[in-house]
Amino acid sequence: MVSIKGKTVKQSEVSLRNLMEPIHANIAGNVHGGEIMKLMDNAAGVAAARHARTNVVTVSVDKLKFHFPVHISNLVTCNAKLSFVGNSSMEVFVKVIVEDIIKEEPAKVAATAFFTMVALGQNGKPIAVSPLEITNDEEQRLFNEGRERYRTK
Amino acid sequence: MVSIKGKTVKQSEVSLRNLMEPIHANIAGNVHGGEIMKLMDNAAGVAAARHARTNVVTVSVDKLKFHFPVHISNLVTCNAKLSFVGNSSMEVFVKVIVEDIIKEEPAKVAATAFFTMVALGQNGKPIAVSPLEITNDEEQRLFNEGRERYRTK
Amino acid sequence: MVSIKGKTVKQSEVSLRNLMEPIHANIAGNVHGGEIMKLMDNAAGVAAARHARTNVVTVSVDKLKFHFPVHISNLVTCNAKLSFVGNSSMEVFVKVIVEDIIKEEPAKVAATAFFTMVALGQNGKPIAVSPLEITNDEEQRLFNEGRERYRTK
Amino acid sequence: MVSIKGKTVKQSEVSLRNLMEPIHANIAGNVHGGEIMKLMDNAAGVAAARHARTNVVTVSVDKLKFHFPVHISNLVTCNAKLSFVGNSSMEVFVKVIVEDIIKEEPAKVAATAFFTMVALGQNGKPIAVSPLEITNDEEQRLFNEGRERYRTK
Amino acid sequence: MVSIKGKTVKQSEVSLRNLMEPIHANIAGNVHGGEIMKLMDNAAGVAAARHARTNVVTVSVDKLKFHFPVHISNLVTCNAKLSFVGNSSMEVFVKVIVEDIIKEEPAKVAATAFFTMVALGQNGKPIAVSPLEITNDEEQRLFNEGRERYRTK
Amino acid sequence: MVSIKGKTVKQSEVSLRNLMEPIHANIAGNVHGGEIMKLMDNAAGVAAARHARTNVVTVSVDKLKFHFPVHISNLVTCNAKLSFVGNSSMEVFVKVIVEDIIKEEPAKVAATAFFTMVALGQNGKPIAVSPLEITNDEEQRLFNEGRERYRTK
Repeated sequence: MVSIKGKTVKQSEVSLRNLMEPIHANIAGNVHGGEIMKLMDNAAGVAAARHARTNVVTVSVDKLKFHFPVHISNLVTCNAKLSFVGNSSMEVFVKVIVEDIIKEEPAKVAATAFFTMVALGQNGKPIAVSPLEITNDEEQRLFNEGRERYRTK
Repeated sequence: MVSIKGKTVKQSEVSLRNLMEPIHANIAGNVHGGEIMKLMDNAAGVAAARHARTNVVTVSVDKLKFHFPVHISNLVTCNAKLSFVGNSSMEVFVKVIVEDIIKEEPAKVAATAFFTMVALGQNGKPIAVSPLEITNDEEQRLFNEGRERYRTK
Repeated sequence: MVSIKGKTVKQSEVSLRNLMEPIHANIAGNVHGGEIMKLMDNAAGVAAARHARTNVVTVSVDKLKFHFPVHISNLVTCNAKLSFVGNSSMEVFVKVIVEDIIKEEPAKVAATAFFTMVALGQNGKPIAVSPLEITNDEEQRLFNEGRERYRTK
Repeated sequence: MVSIKGKTVKQSEVSLRNLMEPIHANIAGNVHGGEIMKLMDNAAGVAAARHARTNVVTVSVDKLKFHFPVHISNLVTCNAKLSFVGNSSMEVFVKVIVEDIIKEEPAKVAATAFFTMVALGQNGKPIAVSPLEITNDEEQRLFNEGRERYRTK
Repeated sequence: MVSIKGKTVKQSEVSLRNLMEPIHANIAGNVHGGEIMKLMDNAAGVAAARHARTNVVTVSVDKLKFHFPVHISNLVTCNAKLSFVGNSSMEVFVKVIVEDIIKEEPAKVAATAFFTMVALGQNGKPIAVSPLEITNDEEQRLFNEGRERYRTK
Repeated sequence: MVSIKGKTVKQSEVSLRNLMEPIHANIAGNVHGGEIMKLMDNAAGVAAARHARTNVVTVSVDKLKFHFPVHISNLVTCNAKLSFVGNSSMEVFVKVIVEDIIKEEPAKVAATAFFTMVALGQNGKPIAVSPLEITNDEEQRLFNEGRERYRTK
């Protein structure tokens, strides 16, 4: 019996973190939703590239929710971890966490989303990636949900 | 019998259009998905603000699909029109159309998504907006789908 | 008698449209005149490239007038249409229209200018472009004025 | 007899200078004409503000000519000096000079233009500025030409 | 006897992390040293603000060393931790770590520096900050060196 | 006896100058220290490239001091001149001078630093550069200090 070892969620998980500055502002003076999405897209891309060890491209975003406005001078952490892996596509769960750098308050989840990335070979065509090794119940739950979204697309 | 007149889809529909330049590039040399999302967010925001005639904020994005990479020097048009209106929330259907400015080729749909925006009053709290007046079958179909997404959130 | 068919003004006319955001601000807090000029230059470039179906380069700008300051959060539309075509040079009339996205006010013309673009061949040298087909009196008037500017340069 | 002393051209003349970097690129890979215009607008604004010692706003640009494309990595100097002063308006002659930072070649004039700026008082309305003291023939020639443009506007 | 408890190094330590994109490029096509410095400055500022729980300002940078060029598409982590605390000034040791997101190579230290930040009160004047609680030999060594630099300034 | 003539400090000295705009702001609303460092790095790079007439790379920064915050709308001049030349490395003294463009106040030194740049040949390896010709006491003093820093690195 052959056991094809995959890669764990931890092996590709990544956190991007940045200070929100005036150049990120929208017309209301808060952080532009598009800037948050750009950061989320980068985080999802790094996690997927780490899993696939090849170039990746974003093909879809699902269930992106913004819970409250992010403010200029906030510290924003964008955590990305694979939730499901198909043949060449990887679903990445991205969570945006916000902290005030002056006030001692608990960090809050400002946004979440599922990004689907596809691994590309040298010729720019999709290529197969390693399976995702599940190591706990939370990962299994996300995997099942991701597979459901994958099947109903 | 009282007839509450709403606003039509056409009254708030808007197209943002821009040339994609080197500052919009991702690490693969194509247009950054986050830049496209930022443009889509702006287009959705303008359509919603025109309908509500008040400030709006993005609360969620659904079914965002990228069909192919957009290239630097492409002309990108971001069409946004309201698909559904709840009490204070408006769902906006955003379509991204791409053209080569040199070659005479038909424009192609590069991305689509549904953005949900909420109208805010002076105090920053959600306020009710005008209902959406439906004028044709296509609008009705989008409205029904949007109401379905609204109810299952 | 040989009739050389050109291209009409409508065939290359284009409108770029964008939300003015904090990154576009000048030191007075309004939209930077240079940002407006950059947008106008892009619009003129797209119209000229559409007419010539080749790369183009800006060689001069005439009679650029700013009628009033543009504000952050304004929706700016940059309409560009060819006014005159020489051998390899194209004059493009650019009109900047400004709207408030919240208040229901009529759109206003914030700026106008004439950009002269030259079509470049593969070797980077100027190449001849299609003549401009005039279809109405307004186009003829702009064409005559453009030819006058072209001759007195 | 009262002699109202003005300010000389030298008192407000200014040179902005900057390295052209990849963020300034247009779709052809050269420096974006709009970036050059933005730099010229800044230089004109600084010269006018120095003369008027108050806020200024750009109202028009005339005879802007680009002589050749500017390249990324070029050193660009934007020289601005007042050519004519009306009541509240100041015409500024702007010259863009380009140098290669590696090769020992003579600097070249890449662009020139006349910017007209208006001095604004605290209430945002035009206010009178000091007259321009002419000190040589070259300044007098530019002044006469500027006055001619001013009168025929 | 009163024991004034300080804050540990761990309590304020922070890592900013970002993907290097084309907008960060210098004229050689690598990441601009100034962009790295900007990121380092942000990391130092967040660590200092977390220690002081007030606004901070950069007053000096010492021994900034770049070990090799950072490439576009690299993942850059900027680790900042306090090395020494004076009365109102905090020295922050910043280490820049670079990873390739595709190739499985060990991360490398691309740059290091010591940033000195000063805590500011509501009136913009320096205010005293909590002492730094040292918990191991490495922290003690950095503290001693920082105190030496502080004394000889 | 052979006399190898070098290049003087004046031959490579350069001043970059720019208006500080809202895009340069930090979270406190002043000019971001990282933006000042980026400008200083550019100025040092241009001076070193002019001396070496080849590509250069920043390897270290010493004794960078910020004397006071720079404000948006300030005119910033970044003067860079070689202080010491080793074999392939050049130390550049950079001085940042700040002026208010409206108020008639004396210019002030806002920051100073020593940047060390290395000249690179076509293969990306360090190459020898011309010696530095000293022409006055001030230059000699800076040269001696730079040599001291060079030796103790």
